Amino acid sequence: MRLSGPCSRASSLSLRATAVRRSSPTHLVVPRRNLAVEVSTLDGELRPRIVTDSVPGPKGREASAAIGRFQDPRAHVLVCDYTKSKGNYLVDVDGNTYLDLYAQIASIPIGYNHPRLLELAKSDLYGTLAMNRPSLGVFPPAEWKELVEDAFLSVAPTGMDQVFTAMCGSCANETAFKAAFMSYPARQAGAKASELSFSPEELSSCMRNQSPGSPDMSILSFTSAFHGRLFGSLSATRSKPIHKVGIPAFDWPAVEWPEVKYPFDQYQKENQAAEAKTLEEVERVIKANKHTKPVAAVIIEPIASEGGDHHASANFFRGLRDLTLKEGVAFIVDEVQTGVGPTGTFWASDKWELDTPPDFLTFSKKMQAAGFFHNTDTRPPQAYRNFNTWMGDPIRALQAAEQIRVINDPDNSLVHKASTVGDRLYTELDFMSGGGGKGKGKILNLRGKGQGTFIAWDMPSPEKRDAFLIKMRQNGVNMAGCGDAAVRLRPMLVFEHKHAEIMLETAQQVLAEI
Amino acid sequence: MRLSGPCSRASSLSLRATAVRRSSPTHLVVPRRNLAVEVSTLDGELRPRIVTDSVPGPKGREASAAIGRFQDPRAHVLVCDYTKSKGNYLVDVDGNTYLDLYAQIASIPIGYNHPRLLELAKSDLYGTLAMNRPSLGVFPPAEWKELVEDAFLSVAPTGMDQVFTAMCGSCANETAFKAAFMSYPARQAGAKASELSFSPEELSSCMRNQSPGSPDMSILSFTSAFHGRLFGSLSATRSKPIHKVGIPAFDWPAVEWPEVKYPFDQYQKENQAAEAKTLEEVERVIKANKHTKPVAAVIIEPIASEGGDHHASANFFRGLRDLTLKEGVAFIVDEVQTGVGPTGTFWASDKWELDTPPDFLTFSKKMQAAGFFHNTDTRPPQAYRNFNTWMGDPIRALQAAEQIRVINDPDNSLVHKASTVGDRLYTELDFMSGGGGKGKGKILNLRGKGQGTFIAWDMPSPEKRDAFLIKMRQNGVNMAGCGDAAVRLRPMLVFEHKHAEIMLETAQQVLAEI
Repeated sequence: MRLSGPCSRASSLSLRATAVRRSSPTHLVVPRRNLAVEVSTLDGELRPRIVTDSVPGPKGREASAAIGRFQDPRAHVLVCDYTKSKGNYLVDVDGNTYLDLYAQIASIPIGYNHPRLLELAKSDLYGTLAMNRPSLGVFPPAEWKELVEDAFLSVAPTGMDQVFTAMCGSCANETAFKAAFMSYPARQAGAKASELSFSPEELSSCMRNQSPGSPDMSILSFTSAFHGRLFGSLSATRSKPIHKVGIPAFDWPAVEWPEVKYPFDQYQKENQAAEAKTLEEVERVIKANKHTKPVAAVIIEPIASEGGDHHASANFFRGLRDLTLKEGVAFIVDEVQTGVGPTGTFWASDKWELDTPPDFLTFSKKMQAAGFFHNTDTRPPQAYRNFNTWMGDPIRALQAAEQIRVINDPDNSLVHKASTVGDRLYTELDFMSGGGGKGKGKILNLRGKGQGTFIAWDMPSPEKRDAFLIKMRQNGVNMAGCGDAAVRLRPMLVFEHKHAEIMLETAQQVLAEI
Repeated sequence: MRLSGPCSRASSLSLRATAVRRSSPTHLVVPRRNLAVEVSTLDGELRPRIVTDSVPGPKGREASAAIGRFQDPRAHVLVCDYTKSKGNYLVDVDGNTYLDLYAQIASIPIGYNHPRLLELAKSDLYGTLAMNRPSLGVFPPAEWKELVEDAFLSVAPTGMDQVFTAMCGSCANETAFKAAFMSYPARQAGAKASELSFSPEELSSCMRNQSPGSPDMSILSFTSAFHGRLFGSLSATRSKPIHKVGIPAFDWPAVEWPEVKYPFDQYQKENQAAEAKTLEEVERVIKANKHTKPVAAVIIEPIASEGGDHHASANFFRGLRDLTLKEGVAFIVDEVQTGVGPTGTFWASDKWELDTPPDFLTFSKKMQAAGFFHNTDTRPPQAYRNFNTWMGDPIRALQAAEQIRVINDPDNSLVHKASTVGDRLYTELDFMSGGGGKGKGKILNLRGKGQGTFIAWDMPSPEKRDAFLIKMRQNGVNMAGCGDAAVRLRPMLVFEHKHAEIMLETAQQVLAEI
């Protein structure tokens, strides 16, 4: 049967790649049209194919142990052959081929070894910017303006026209926190930031990490949130004890994520009440702390991903935006995991149709470049305050720009594809969970309707969930969990109906076994 | 005269580059010998050459303003043409050519557009790892073991055999802090970390950012230290108010950097006393906080760079290592700026000849890859505790490996070169500061003897220092300051006597004018 079928004609992609028209490698501006590499043939005829008795196989176990001599190998799942991986398929060092619905923790947007990206890597400009990494804040390259326009401004959320670039998702959130703290005094005073200056006491006390120079302010986040793992971002993260235990944290407040029920639209009244309760609590915490430990910003994910794929309505997020405006508190939307199309809109927060954009929208993962969008009112009043050596990485901006061209090319329309593929996938899973397959009693709290392929469900226990994931992998489908007992789908934007069918068929088989 | 001479035969490098033997692009292991591109011809016949009336010129000002529409441009110094930059020479968009002694805030090791690196960028493996960025902690590539060996273990400090990879200098220090906090309980108990487990109270309280799960522990740093700008690293940074003001910080202790005098070896007795006083204070602070807010680690730079290039003796650092061992506190050496050769040894701390290696040695900048060295005793007792999506970047490891091959090639011996070039440069500057040139009364507190090209001096005032740097740039030499009124030299490892002569001659001229 399919799962053990031969891996034929795997070379079709490389032939296609050679045939793709080459853009001039020394120019940034490449034609915006006719960029499509037909998505349905991206992974050629690859299929899930497990050739070893166990997963990982002997070569994978050996490679992992070898790495383990100098780095912690306990989180290893597979040691991979990225040269052989293609499109939706990940190949390991034993030659096993997996349909990949995890995509490097949701960070590969347009498939492995996309020919457009491999071509970009060979361009002279890519090589120059890779091997002469500039300090972008001090000595930016001539190409930076056009690069930022192509990579970031071309997909800026409505009403946002500034972008701060950084190195990773945690860095993106922490530099947004810094910008929120820096702009808080002006926001509260209704003044321009540049009109405020520092007292001698502020300038001297900050050198001792003491108030007022190091102000006792906070970031408000939500239970189950994941915003990163460095000291500021980890203080806002509330996903799992293993992420936090033993590490000092700022005494910042958290409010319960709305206790909604699924299917979301079948519990409208209850969910509205739960969301209203959360908004009230946010307002209460902001007001209670205003004169002791002011909340400078509220940060939230559109879908609390790592913490278990918890949802809330667009109405809730609009309420949160209104509340933060009323209280003079910055609103930070963390789109590190939801951004770049998987929910069926480029940014998940596009669906909220906010009247006033967020103060900050952070990104990383699928963008491959990290940072945040904002507006000039949150540009720090003084230079060098939100600053570091590299201020991002121009080659990751080059990559983001090329990815965006591929995603938005009308011949691909990959964001729309995520929407239609996700809708059908959700319907199938809903059918299975209701007894139309082997999912009854095993696929619980299905969620992500209307959110593209950003779909999740609970299983009856963490053990059952883990067993499900392991067996899926043994059958050639790589997936991951989140929260306590949830399965999350995080395929790439090149994931199609045919791939969804393989996943569903394999899941039927595995669900029957556990 | 030279500073306005023609820029002839700039193309000699590209001819050489083509002639360099190509290694097989699909194999990681390249021959370790005969890699040298003769360093003295790296930048061909380039010379400082200013062709515009002002620096930056009109194109540079326009380019900066264009970037300024979407990013803060106030820290811009030059908008650069990295395609034309070569070796020690940085070229801006107006066609001005600068001898570069700043090197992207001390982060370019072997010169702009080194042909070996440009060749690496075109290899298939580089392209594959660039465009399929793996989650290294979960799905490492087949090549990772060899890459880590080549890029990191080949230059591991004596007695250290583990490496944790990260994205930037701040991330490197913060993940080292996390590892220090995680290993502190075992270190204090004299137990193996794996023998300790968490109480239910710890697991629940950490989710509220409260003790005991989020323990009230600290990192001890020194005044004038710079360890980064994210929330944990910024709490240990004590360089300048503009870096810290307005941002919440952990209430962590700082101890005065030893108040040494320069020339360092002329004040042996006074400097020993100053260092002894600092060591006593470190011991006092560790003991005083032990039962309230324990110091989990002491972090220090071998030379406090951003804060003003403050030095201390090898004896002081050996004393600090002994003290941290005695108190069961981790010792973190921050080599983000000093590492990779500029001080005349690969790691500046190599000169200390410690009996017991540091617990953590952090790196970034010139390595181009970031992270820290450590040993298995500081591997977190549980998986997923010091973890993130990318866990570093394999293409920066590829780059580090190639750089190290070039640096250590016996035909180059670039670390030794930094030592000999630096010794002569120091002697010349010492002569100038003593009245043998125009430096008397202007080159003060010269420091960095025996520290390669890692040299600095004070000027009579911040204004004089700034005027000096601006005039140097107007005359084609790009340099930078640190601390309040210091000039710091941070040339690349391919900086030679002939480049030092250009800098010295230009400095003579500029010093006479200010």
